Parts: sequence; structure tokens; C-alpha cells
Amino acid sequence: LIATPTEEMNGAGNLMDFLDEPFPDVGTYEDFHTIDWLREKSRDTDRHRKITSKSKESIWELIKSLLDAWSGWVVMLLIGLLSGTLAGVIDLAVDWMTDLKEGVCLSAFWYSHEQCCWTSNETTFDDRDKCPQWQKWAELMTGHAEGAGAYVLNYFLYILWALLFSFLAVSLVRVFAPYACGSGIPEIKTILSGFIIRGYLGKWTLLIKTVTLVLAVSSGLSLGKEGPLVHVACCCGNLFCSLFSKYSKNEGKRREVLSAAAAAGVSVAFGAPIGGVLFSLEEVSYYFPLKTLWRSFFAALVAAFTLRSINPFGNSRLVLFYVEYHTPWYMAELVPFILLGVFGGLWGTLFIRANIAWCRRRKTTQLGKYPVLEVIAITGITAVLAYPNPYTRRSTSELISELFNDCGALESSQLCDYINNPNMSRPVDDIPDRPAGPGVYNALWQLALALVFKIVITIFTFGMKIPSGLFIPSMAVGAIAGRIVGIAVEQMAYHHHDWIIFKNWCRPGADCVTPGLYAMVGAAACLGGVTRMTVSLVVIMFELTGGLEYIVPLMAAAVTSKWVADAFGKEGIYESHIQLNGYPYLDVRDEFTHRTLATDVMRPRRNDPPLAVLTQDTTTVEDVETLIKDTDYNGFPVVVSRESERLIGFVQRRDLTLAIKNARQKQDGVVSSSVVYFTEDAPQLPASNPQPLKLRRILNLSPFTVTDHTPMETVVDIFRKLGLRQCLVTRSGRLLGIITKKDVLRHMAQMMNQDPESIMFN
Amino acid sequence: LIATPTEEMNGAGNLMDFLDEPFPDVGTYEDFHTIDWLREKSRDTDRHRKITSKSKESIWELIKSLLDAWSGWVVMLLIGLLSGTLAGVIDLAVDWMTDLKEGVCLSAFWYSHEQCCWTSNETTFDDRDKCPQWQKWAELMTGHAEGAGAYVLNYFLYILWALLFSFLAVSLVRVFAPYACGSGIPEIKTILSGFIIRGYLGKWTLLIKTVTLVLAVSSGLSLGKEGPLVHVACCCGNLFCSLFSKYSKNEGKRREVLSAAAAAGVSVAFGAPIGGVLFSLEEVSYYFPLKTLWRSFFAALVAAFTLRSINPFGNSRLVLFYVEYHTPWYMAELVPFILLGVFGGLWGTLFIRANIAWCRRRKTTQLGKYPVLEVIAITGITAVLAYPNPYTRRSTSELISELFNDCGALESSQLCDYINNPNMSRPVDDIPDRPAGPGVYNALWQLALALVFKIVITIFTFGMKIPSGLFIPSMAVGAIAGRIVGIAVEQMAYHHHDWIIFKNWCRPGADCVTPGLYAMVGAAACLGGVTRMTVSLVVIMFELTGGLEYIVPLMAAAVTSKWVADAFGKEGIYESHIQLNGYPYLDVRDEFTHRTLATDVMRPRRNDPPLAVLTQDTTTVEDVETLIKDTDYNGFPVVVSRESERLIGFVQRRDLTLAIKNARQKQDGVVSSSVVYFTEDAPQLPASNPQPLKLRRILNLSPFTVTDHTPMETVVDIFRKLGLRQCLVTRSGRLLGIITKKDVLRHMAQMMNQDPESIMFN
Repeated sequence: LIATPTEEMNGAGNLMDFLDEPFPDVGTYEDFHTIDWLREKSRDTDRHRKITSKSKESIWELIKSLLDAWSGWVVMLLIGLLSGTLAGVIDLAVDWMTDLKEGVCLSAFWYSHEQCCWTSNETTFDDRDKCPQWQKWAELMTGHAEGAGAYVLNYFLYILWALLFSFLAVSLVRVFAPYACGSGIPEIKTILSGFIIRGYLGKWTLLIKTVTLVLAVSSGLSLGKEGPLVHVACCCGNLFCSLFSKYSKNEGKRREVLSAAAAAGVSVAFGAPIGGVLFSLEEVSYYFPLKTLWRSFFAALVAAFTLRSINPFGNSRLVLFYVEYHTPWYMAELVPFILLGVFGGLWGTLFIRANIAWCRRRKTTQLGKYPVLEVIAITGITAVLAYPNPYTRRSTSELISELFNDCGALESSQLCDYINNPNMSRPVDDIPDRPAGPGVYNALWQLALALVFKIVITIFTFGMKIPSGLFIPSMAVGAIAGRIVGIAVEQMAYHHHDWIIFKNWCRPGADCVTPGLYAMVGAAACLGGVTRMTVSLVVIMFELTGGLEYIVPLMAAAVTSKWVADAFGKEGIYESHIQLNGYPYLDVRDEFTHRTLATDVMRPRRNDPPLAVLTQDTTTVEDVETLIKDTDYNGFPVVVSRESERLIGFVQRRDLTLAIKNARQKQDGVVSSSVVYFTEDAPQLPASNPQPLKLRRILNLSPFTVTDHTPMETVVDIFRKLGLRQCLVTRSGRLLGIITKKDVLRHMAQMMNQDPESIMFN
Repeated sequence: LIATPTEEMNGAGNLMDFLDEPFPDVGTYEDFHTIDWLREKSRDTDRHRKITSKSKESIWELIKSLLDAWSGWVVMLLIGLLSGTLAGVIDLAVDWMTDLKEGVCLSAFWYSHEQCCWTSNETTFDDRDKCPQWQKWAELMTGHAEGAGAYVLNYFLYILWALLFSFLAVSLVRVFAPYACGSGIPEIKTILSGFIIRGYLGKWTLLIKTVTLVLAVSSGLSLGKEGPLVHVACCCGNLFCSLFSKYSKNEGKRREVLSAAAAAGVSVAFGAPIGGVLFSLEEVSYYFPLKTLWRSFFAALVAAFTLRSINPFGNSRLVLFYVEYHTPWYMAELVPFILLGVFGGLWGTLFIRANIAWCRRRKTTQLGKYPVLEVIAITGITAVLAYPNPYTRRSTSELISELFNDCGALESSQLCDYINNPNMSRPVDDIPDRPAGPGVYNALWQLALALVFKIVITIFTFGMKIPSGLFIPSMAVGAIAGRIVGIAVEQMAYHHHDWIIFKNWCRPGADCVTPGLYAMVGAAACLGGVTRMTVSLVVIMFELTGGLEYIVPLMAAAVTSKWVADAFGKEGIYESHIQLNGYPYLDVRDEFTHRTLATDVMRPRRNDPPLAVLTQDTTTVEDVETLIKDTDYNGFPVVVSRESERLIGFVQRRDLTLAIKNARQKQDGVVSSSVVYFTEDAPQLPASNPQPLKLRRILNLSPFTVTDHTPMETVVDIFRKLGLRQCLVTRSGRLLGIITKKDVLRHMAQMMNQDPESIMFN
């Protein structure tokens, strides 16, 4: 037997009471507050029910309900199109402006170096690089392309352009959109976990972040565009949410869209749609139902194909670093790969610790008061140190691209300067036939210097008041280290081919070490050490190489790097920044293994004043107002009476304030001494009493409760999985106290002996 | 301030009481019961705590704790190795036995046809197929390879072998391991959601399923090995769980391993490790934390590489159907692709409805009593009808492989019999230059017949008492339909190249329609229609083609197919079979949108006898025993007193039975009139009373409660996300009733107007 009709109608009636939103803003959240996932879900189900029942009334309502059902896909399509387009525009602009630091295209000033020389008649790559249409500033201004004077002038202008770009970037951020700085991923993680930061994903942030991202990357600072692209894509997602009330009015549904947008962001950053979806799943998202998985995939694909049709790299490739290797790898190579993994883990630890220490110093000292000066100073140092070294002068993605590349026959790069002796006969045992030439040794020195430079400067760059991602700098560090190791192994194999390990390694006369693969493995290791990504990292790398062949080296390095880095500290860079900024983020991955109980965490503590509660029918309006004024709790439990302490519900502070304000204005007879009641029927009062105020419609009749004996690990699990704001603690049916998300976070931090004051927001 | 030491120790003490497992079997589950995820998790955390605190005591304990931490990875490695090996062995055996139906290799009888002719000297593919070492049965027995007599003899022996194989398969299943039948995926989904089916993943099932899978596939029945391979991999997972107490003693942790094993199963079935992980995530798993994602990926990779090193297909490819297409697709082709999607959706609906109807008939009528006869009959019909048609005679995977293939210059297949006129000059507008030859038209007829045959026979095959997967038959149906459509479009484009749609389509003189791609799209559509996979389907297909080029057609078809099929019924084949078998599976994807409240679902209902409860210190041993005898509830709430109805905890029936039995045997003075108490201290009793029995250690002091006003959608959400067995319902602190998982499932079924009796188990 299911419920009788009366029962069911009653139930529905109560629900209606609660969900009908009788006055504006009831059920919304204040800035820097946590949302209640269960309530959001409940509201969406209710909305859905209304639409479904209405859709049977008329054709128009049916069409509206179909549109509503499709709106999710429409939003995904729009996100994919816009974020793909923005990524394409950013790529083109960065390309042009990066080259602008060195010179200009005479035939059309809006061409980048590569585009300018595209149609040139020169035959070799080297000559084409020096095509006459492209002129360096010194050549254009003095007529001399070579010589010390020209070098100094070029150097000077390079620094000037860099300073101009970064000054513009930081000024725009400062003046128009302070939220546009940083990578944005820590904040997006926090927002997706159910926190409200108004304006963080606004239109203004979108515009300014897009523009300043171009400026920041072009200025030659050691930062990447991948993290900020995720932020940009999420801004797009938020923008399109506002088109549909389904998403704009429900904070829970909105977060589903944002999760998908994050996937689209990574998809366009690397050209890796599957990797993007897994990144969103693994790294960014909090609530990720299967429906979102499928839609994220759609958004990521649309974004990737939009980007490809814009074709910013001019090679109709989808991926940022397309590589193709010709030689397989050998078991013995796992040793250097694992060493690279160890390096990646150490780099991750060093970077996180140093960067967090520096960011903390920025927050707590005078330094934080001069963000513009800081950016200018770091840009100046970067430009001065970067220009002399050809590997740091160019853009970091170009550098990574060159390091990943396998040396072909036509390669003009210094790194491919191997001595090819055409007369050399190939003895059976002589492998591989590539002694390094002077160019390679030269490159090795420059790479070593570049490595040290990148390691140091990235620590100071990430966290400044400009958009800055750290995927690319991290990958660059790893790629440089990897390439150096790769060349070392290769030369060792050449010069000591009689060593036992090399003897059984390669077929005679063939190449057996691919230094580019080492660079890729190193990049994966360093990225893994910093972000602690695992599956998504390997899948992104897999999509870059497009083959399962090299997945084992990548996995070995990624696993090693994660283990090494985890041994020094469980938190990746994003979690560390979340903690530094004190966002209330309940990490899904933190295992809570302490033996505390709910009673140890709940408030009020021993010696505290008793819990602030309302009674169901004896509190007056004045009492409520005093309570609201005197406390800053986000809500109050409602009990039958103070003696019995039997819980009947929970009422939100915001709803209570609004309801009383509303009643005072609009409802006659409601005065300070009016009794507030939460029961179905008005209490029996003497006739002399003023009219009572019924507030049952704002009462949540199903507050979440646990007993005082519940282990905290279970409580943490419940908070995580159900996305609660607070939870009431009872013993044998009596209300004892309350645990809020803030209490849980503070307790977890205490248990880990961390600074409990770092959790600032509610 | 956190808890004072005393408080904390008290808390810990209580927890110890509960978790110490004072008598054997406390905390385990009975067969066909649901596990309590929260309790399992809590027990694992406790175990982990113990090991961590012990590890500080000695080096040996430290090593043990490290081994414990690594055991997860070791289990994954072992699962990967064993399931990869088994898949390789199965592939080799199936290859050999499928060919054995037609003939035998004279040089070595254990060679399959392909292996036999591998070293042959014939130059063309066609001749090599007829190498002298390989003899058909008629040739071997009568000396005549051709002629009606030889055909009839071959036909007869083909049927005989098929019957022999399937008879062996069904007999082995019947006698040794009844759980080895079917695909196993519905049951694995149920097990992973927290249900106990003892022996379903046992060693015996593993052995018999592996052997009978080979027999069933070789018999030529319309079934595949993919689903059963997932079952085999899960059996491997379960086997290796028993090596480590961490997994064997904790049903929650065991399920993490099984999720990863399922990924390894799909990984070896298709050679698609990423697709396997996503399949496990999307289709099979219930509780899938990030740690499991990473480990699944590892297991899937190890399995794939083990399989590749066995190299059963002799081509060192990882994937089952490796395809490479040379022509891009065009926007206009989306129309036929979407039509194929519609076909896939319709096929999915038809198949699910017909198959479920047939399976229900089997369950409810005499038919179910003769499983051996049924298998023999279906095998006979299949063999008789399959032999005359070359497309159904061979194994289904070979058929799919041929249908996916693009016609190259050297292809000897009938499907590639295009008329190539070497003298034909290529006019600018004449595209594509491939009119179909008689072979193609012939093939079309045979394919059409094969399509009808496969559609009908698969409906009757899936669900018989032999191992049977339906990935391959579904894909075959789609591939046949797709290839037919592909050839039709191709010929239309050839013969009507002046039509507007074709005019702007292809470059002159180039091929522009790839019929193989249509086959692949069709296969994806049909598989999607039957299983309702989305992301994992597209990713598996993406791994087969190894390029993002064709992902848009595949997605278009998969989305269409899912939408069409969902329009006729939300459930895929696995969910339908779960429902048919009445497993208590709470689907994550079912949205519960009704307006019922907890009070409508809880027991006792109006007019029912009151809820069976225990009091904290007034019930006697006899009362408890009577209660256990008279009711079949799985547990009882414990209240302060029957008057106040204040809840203090929940006790499991099984634990209660064991505790009383144990006390009666071992504890002096415990008689029927002894008072059972759940409080910390013994109640004040007259001296004449027998010794009371303290049972606090089996009392769960943190039972899960909701209020009677909680919407059922929230309750369903809580059951899903926290994996509860039951939940108590209170109003203002008074215990009102109880909701079990069974109640939730029954209510959901009622709300969907389905047969509530289908939920049989607890």
C-alpha cells in the first residue's frame, strides 16, 4: 500500500509551502557562502515536476518543456563554440604579439613571423626563417641586422615590449577585474564544490581575462595559458547559464554546466577532448553525475573542432604538441624514465613549497601592496635573463614543441646537429650512428641554464596579479630536463655500445634512443608532480602522441612522480592555493582517519553558551530579531520546547530575516511581541495577544541529523557526498548541537596540525 | 578546543567495542543480502589506523604496513596479468576450434586455418587461403574437395561439431558452475552496488566460464566473448582479493578491486584500456573513488599489454578490429549516419523487448526446465541456417572485421569486387570511380539475409545457460546494416554524381564514401542502442580507429541511437535483466521525481502492527529470541523505552543471534530471563534477577535517521550515495518507522507502475 491520496497531498502541500518562494530572494545564497546541494537538487526536481505536469496542458507548454529538456545540450554547444573561438583568437594574438617583441612583418604588420615568411620563396627552413619581409626592430630602425649595436637595440626593445605588455595586463586586472588574475583553477574547484564567489565567472572577468591572458603570455613571462583557458571556458559556461532559468536559478545545475565547461577549457588548451573530460572529472569537479560526463564530452569535442576549424597553428592539427616517434622504447630505458619521475616529484615538491612560501609572504608583508611593481620587476628580470638564451627567448610552447620533436633529416635545430659521416660504414655492433656535434653540446649548456632560470622564475611568477597558468612552465622544466637526460643516454649508448646494457638493446645501425620521448616523459613527470593529476595526465599525453606505444613510459614517470611528491606532502598546487586562500573546500581525496566523534566537533562546546535555538510556538518576533542581531549563525534549529529539546526543523538565517522584514511591512498586526510559530496550526493564545506570525513555509522539515556517537569519518563522508551546509547532532532524540562545514574543515585542519585560522570564509 | 583526552578515549572505546569483532562472523553478511557501505568503510579506516599505529613499533610492522599499502597495486598487476593471459588463451582456442568445424591442419592439428597457411608459399591471399596443408573434412575423408557430396558432408560435420561444442558447454555449466552462464554483467553490476552473491565470482566459476566461453563461441552461436570476459576478469579480481585480508575481509574494498577488474576485462576484450576504464565507470561500477580510477587504468593497461605480448591475432595489434580509413567524411554524410543511429535505437528497443519477453517466458513456463535441449536446438538451427551463407558461417568477429575494412587494392573479399576500368579516363566531375561489380551485389543479398538471421537468432540466444556476450552480435547487426547503407550511398554517389548533394561533396576522381566507416558507425549505433553506453562507447571506437577524425560520426550515431532507444524505454539490456531477475539494484541514473515523503514509504504502515523495537534495558533474552523467531527483519532499532520512543541505536539481526548464542554457550548465568542491556552501565535490578547480558558492543550507536517529512527523492539520494541498508524515520525525536533498501526499490517500482513483486531478494 502506498500513501493514501490525503496523505500524499498533505506531503505535497508542505513541500509547496517550502518551495514556493513566497518572497523574493528566499532560497538564494549570500556571497562567500556555501550552497546546500540537497536543497538545490530538490528545487530542480520540483521545477521539473511542474514543467512535466504543465506540458500536458497545451502544445505550447509541451514545446516549452522540450526546449527545457534540450537546453542542456544547447548550452554545451554554445560553450564549445565560444570557448573554441576564444582559444583560437588567443592563440593567434599570442603568436603575433610574441613575435612583435622581436620584429615586425613589413608586408602586413598583423602577421606573425611564421605567417609573414609563409609565402616566401626561400627553400630551406633556415633561410625561410630569415625571409626579407620579416624585419627585426634594429634592422628596421638602423638598417643594420647584425652587430653589437643591433643586438643591444633588439635586446632593449624586447625588454620594453615585455614591460609594456605586462604593465597593460596588470593594470587591466587591477582596474577592471581583480578576479581575472592567477590560474583560476583553485577558485573554480572551490566554486564547483558549492561555494559562491559572485563575479568570479562574470562577463567582465571573461573579457578582461581573455585580453590580459594574451598580454601576459606575450610578455614572455614564465606562465602558460592552459589554466586561465579553463577559467575563460567556465566564464563562458556561466554566461550561457544566464540564458536559461533552469541553470541560472539553480546553483547546483549551474555547477554541472561549469564542470563541462572546464572540460572544454582543457580540451582547447591541449586539443585533447577525452583528456579534458577526465581532467574535469579527476581534478576540478565535485559533483559529476554521468549525464554531465556525456555532456562534457560533447562540449569538449565541439570546442576542439571549433578550434581546429580556426586552425591557429596553421597545420590543421588538433593538438598543441603533435609528435610522432619512429623508434620503440626498450625496457632498460625505464630506469631513466623513472629517474625523470623522481625529478618531477622533487620539482613538484620544491615548486609547491617555495611558491606557497612566497605567496604567503606576499599576503602578509608589504609586498602584497605593490602588485603592479611586482609584475613589472619580475617581467624585467625575466626579459633581461631570457633574451640572451635562444631557448628562453622564444615562447615556452615553441620551446616544448622543439624539445619533444624527434630529429629528422631536415631538422635545422641546434639540437639536431649530429655528425653524420656518410662514408662511415656501419659495423654490425655500431649503434646508434649519431655522435653529437658541437651544436648539441652548445644546446646542452644553454638548456641547463634555461632549466635553472625556469625553475627559479616560475616560483616567483605563479600567483602574481595577472592571468597565469603553470601547465606550460612545468612541462617546460620537465621537457628540458628530459631532453638533457635523453641526449646523455643517447650519447652514452653511442660511445659505450659495448656496455652490457646497451648490447642487447638496439638493432645494429638503428637509432635506439629518442631524446624527444625523454622530453615528453619529463614533461609529464613534472606536470604530475605539481598538479598530482594521474589518469587525465596520461590520457592528455596519449592524445598528444596518438598511440598506446608510449603509454608505459608516461605512466611509469607519472606514477613515480606522484609517489615521490606525495611522500613530501599530499597536496597539489591547487589544493595548496585553496588552503592558502582559506577557501572552504572539502577535498574528496583527503582520507580522514582520526578517531574523533561528532560530539568532539559539534558546537556548542563544553563551557560555551547553549545552542541558539527557536521554539516552535513560543518565540516572539522580537526574540528572533535579537537572536539574529546577537549571533552570526547561518541558521537556527527549531525545537518543540527548550525542555524537551526535540528537533522539528531548521530555518535559514537569511530566510528568517527576509520573512520577518516582509511580514512587518505587509502583514497587518505583526508587531515585536507577536509570537512566531512553525507548527501547522496557530498556538492557542489569549485574545489580548497580537496576531501571531506563521513561518512554517520557510522551515526545513527534514534537517540532516547524526547522533553524537557518529564517527567523524562518517560525518565527513556525509558532508562530502551529500554536499551539506550543516548537520544537527542529537542523542536519543534530543538536540545536542550543530556541525557546520566550517567546523568540519577546521577539525580536519586541526587533526592534521595545520593552522586552523586559514579557514576564513564560512 | 577539540575533545578532551577522556572524551576522546571514551569515543574510541565505544568504537572499539563495536569494531573489535568479539565473536567470529560478526560484521559479515549473509548470502543475497546487501552490504552496509558506511560500516565497511568505517571498518577499513579502523584497520588502517591499527596498522599505522603499529608500524611505529618495529621494523617488521613497518614493512608489513608498507606491504599493505602496496597490496592494491599488486592485486591490480596480478589481475592484469591473469586476465590478459586468459583472454589470449581464449582467443587462440576460439580461433582453432572455430576452424575445426570446417577442417584441420595436416602439418599440426593444433594450428588454426590462418596459422596453418602462414608459412605456405602461395603468393596471393586467395591462394594462401586454400593452402594444401589445410584440408576441409570432406577432402580429408573422401578425397574430394568440391562437389555436392563434399558440401553436404562438410555441412553435416559443421553442424555436428557445433552441437558437440554447445552440448559440452551447457553440460559443464549445468553440472559444475550454474553461475557461469550469461554475460554476467547484470550480476556484476548488482554485486558492485553492494549485494552478496556467494560463489558468483568463485574459482570454479572462473574455470568453467573460461572453458565454456571457448566452447560457446566456437560453436558458432550468435554470441560474443566481451561480456563474459568482464566476468572472467572479475573472477580473477575476486581470486586475488583472497590473498590480502585488506580486500578479502572487507566487502567495500573488495568492490573497488572488482571495479578495476571489470575495466581490465573490457580492456582485453577490445584492446581499449581507456575505453575499459570508462566502461567500468559509466556502465558497471557503483562506488568509484578516484583512487580506483587510477588503479583501474593500471590494471587495464597491464592486461592489454599482456594480451599483446601473447599476440593471439598474429598482427601485434592491441585492438580487436584495427581499421584505418583514408578518406575524410563529409557533412552530408551525417544524414545516413543519423539514420543508422535511428536504426540502432530501434534495434536496441526491439532486442531488449523481445529478449526480455522470451527470457520471462523461459522463467515462467516449462521451457526453463530443459536448458540443455534449448541450447542444442538453438545451436542446431543456427548451424543449419548459418552454413550456407559465407557471412554467417565464419566467426562473427571476422565478419565485423571484414565489414569495417576499407577496400584496398589487394583485397580479395567479395565486398571489394568493384569494376575498375583501367582505360577509363577520369572526367573532372566523375566521382567516385567505382561501380559495384557482381560480387558486391551478391554480397549485398547475402548480407541482407545475414542481417535478418542475426537479428532473430540473437534474441533467442542471449540468456541461455551458456556464457554469452552481446557486444559482438549487436555490433554485427549494426555493421551489416551500416555496410549495406554505405554501399548504397556509394553507388548512389557514383551513378548520380550530378545530384546537387553529391556535386559539392568530393574532389574529382577521389573516393568519397567509405562503406567501412558506415559499418563502424552502424556497429556503434546498435551497441549503443542495446547497452545505452555513451562516452565509453565512443572512446572504445576512438581507440579502435586511433584518430579523432571519425569521432563526430560516431558521436552523432551514438547520441541518436540513445535518444531513440530512450524514447521507448529508459532501461538498457543490463538494467532490464537486473529487473527481470529481481536484483536489488538502485540505479544511479534513474531520476526519482515523485512527490512522496519518507512517511509514505516507511514501515509500519497504517494498520500494520507496531515497529519491532528493543528497549535499552528492559528486554530479556527470551523476548529477543522470540522477536528473532517471529520476524524476519534484518535488524532492530533500540529505544530508551517504548513510551518515549527515543532512538539510541540499531542492532543487526545476525549480530544479535550470534551474540546471544555465544553468551548462552560461554557466559555463565545468562538464561532466558536475563535482561539484555545496551547501555554503558548495567541497569539497577533486584538481586534475585539473573545476570544481565551487555550487548553494547554490537549496537550501532550512529544509525542513519531522516525525518518523516523528508522528500523521497532525498531519501533515494542518500541511499544511493551513502550505500545504506536501512534508514530510521523519526518525527520530533520520536522513532516512527524504518525504510530499507527493499522498501525504496519497491516504492520506486510502484511509482513507475511496475510489478513490485519483481524485487525478490532483500
